[in-house]
Amino acid sequence: MTLFSRIVIIGVGLMGGSVGLAAKKKEVAGCIVGVDRDETHLTAARDRGIIDIGTTDFEEGVCRLGGTQSRVAELIVVATPVGLVAEYVQRAAEAIRSVAPPRGFPPRNVLITDVGSTKSAVCSQLCSRKDFGGSRFIGSHPIAGSERSGPQHASEVLFENRLTVISPSAAARDVDIGLLVQFWQRLGSSVICTTPEEHDSILARTSHLPHLLSAILAGGLRSQDIRYTGTGFRSTTRLAAGLPAVWRDIVSSNSGAILEAVRDYEHRLRDLREIIERKDWDGLTAFLEDAKQNRDALG
Amino acid sequence: MTLFSRIVIIGVGLMGGSVGLAAKKKEVAGCIVGVDRDETHLTAARDRGIIDIGTTDFEEGVCRLGGTQSRVAELIVVATPVGLVAEYVQRAAEAIRSVAPPRGFPPRNVLITDVGSTKSAVCSQLCSRKDFGGSRFIGSHPIAGSERSGPQHASEVLFENRLTVISPSAAARDVDIGLLVQFWQRLGSSVICTTPEEHDSILARTSHLPHLLSAILAGGLRSQDIRYTGTGFRSTTRLAAGLPAVWRDIVSSNSGAILEAVRDYEHRLRDLREIIERKDWDGLTAFLEDAKQNRDALG
Repeated sequence: MTLFSRIVIIGVGLMGGSVGLAAKKKEVAGCIVGVDRDETHLTAARDRGIIDIGTTDFEEGVCRLGGTQSRVAELIVVATPVGLVAEYVQRAAEAIRSVAPPRGFPPRNVLITDVGSTKSAVCSQLCSRKDFGGSRFIGSHPIAGSERSGPQHASEVLFENRLTVISPSAAARDVDIGLLVQFWQRLGSSVICTTPEEHDSILARTSHLPHLLSAILAGGLRSQDIRYTGTGFRSTTRLAAGLPAVWRDIVSSNSGAILEAVRDYEHRLRDLREIIERKDWDGLTAFLEDAKQNRDALG
Repeated sequence: MTLFSRIVIIGVGLMGGSVGLAAKKKEVAGCIVGVDRDETHLTAARDRGIIDIGTTDFEEGVCRLGGTQSRVAELIVVATPVGLVAEYVQRAAEAIRSVAPPRGFPPRNVLITDVGSTKSAVCSQLCSRKDFGGSRFIGSHPIAGSERSGPQHASEVLFENRLTVISPSAAARDVDIGLLVQFWQRLGSSVICTTPEEHDSILARTSHLPHLLSAILAGGLRSQDIRYTGTGFRSTTRLAAGLPAVWRDIVSSNSGAILEAVRDYEHRLRDLREIIERKDWDGLTAFLEDAKQNRDALG
């Protein structure tokens, strides 16, 4: 059974494309519309069956594609870099407000969400506004992804057995929260609610810090050392291949929590260096055993 | 064509077991003998076809297994943690010296190597000794491995398309170097010669530092954060599952070069923190772009 007759995905890259593929596979939507500034993304997304129709015209995609007013989105998923989310949500809400419902129909109720890796900055811009003329925003963050990018790397199983964090504001309606939970569950994910602040503080430690550590390691690689790198170096630096523009937005929109995580890591790195400096090999073993125990627990 | 009629592998864990499997597959040896303190390793290694025969008796394995003096090893691969390599190489040389060659035969020529991740400490103990009574040591480091351990995780393709570094002393004979190069090439690896010091300095940056960074990250994981970890955290911390005893030996035998790599990383981490503190998002983007370029070049 479909949950929405029409889903509009803003930005059909790896994340948006995977939302489209999974929604298709799970028959979550009657029709999936893609909006992207990049025509080649739309072509690739159509070719892969990610979207039914696509356009580079934002307002047309959100409200009018197909030519009749009844074709307004029921769910909009903004899958752009974090720095663009608030702007696109507001533009979508304005576009929807500009399209009056057909005579005799109730006001439009359009749910808007995103897939961004930080939540506080976006939610503080959007969640205080109870109403967008019949559109409601609830932030989502599916903890899934890849260092790759573009619709050609989208995957219909990207969200399976993953966790999606949603961050409803106090004003969010239960019916909308329930619908969004169902949506992510249908895509294969489990769902948890946290506040935007809690989300950003945790993800700074589990995602944003690892990304930066990986990038520092990759950035420091000397050309003459390349041939001596093995699979370990590759694993540890895999994240560094992520798109700089995406990660610039993530870091700049969560710099407080990230700085806290970085400073904590600096202290732990200093402690380890001092263990090595004083040749405390039992201390080193205990340190390595703690780390292994934590890592083994992740499976 | 076999290169050696008899190879003895000291320590049939993941590395030693993979040497055995690959040597079998490539028909490098007539007979492969396993020596391990752990009887369950020997049983698993026999079951998987890693070794033809195995023993927990070191001297028997090196010289006498099978009952005749002609059964002395031609190649001994010491595949123990680095901290035990020098001791086992010396014990092997003594055992061989104690077995006189059959009447009319020339003195025994047994080549001994290892698979250890650090070379200076071992080579400084061994390479200055030109002669071990007919045994010669040349250090090897196949840059291949896994965070897993034990013969059950050994792989016959572990060395394929990898690099093996060998570190011959000035006294090493060309014929032995040539034989060792052939051996690793037959196992699928390319081979490069470096000095022990150069090896240790490079590997501190490309392998030992990434391991420690991974362990710090894993060790700092809070239990309440576990459910929020994704594939990125898992990649970045994969190395932390390595055996603490193995990595204690690696760090303690290469602490000088590792400390240099750690201090350099600390400076780079501080620089990045300062970029974030002053909200220099263009500087952050440039930093992320450099890292991505280096990482993409690794393929």
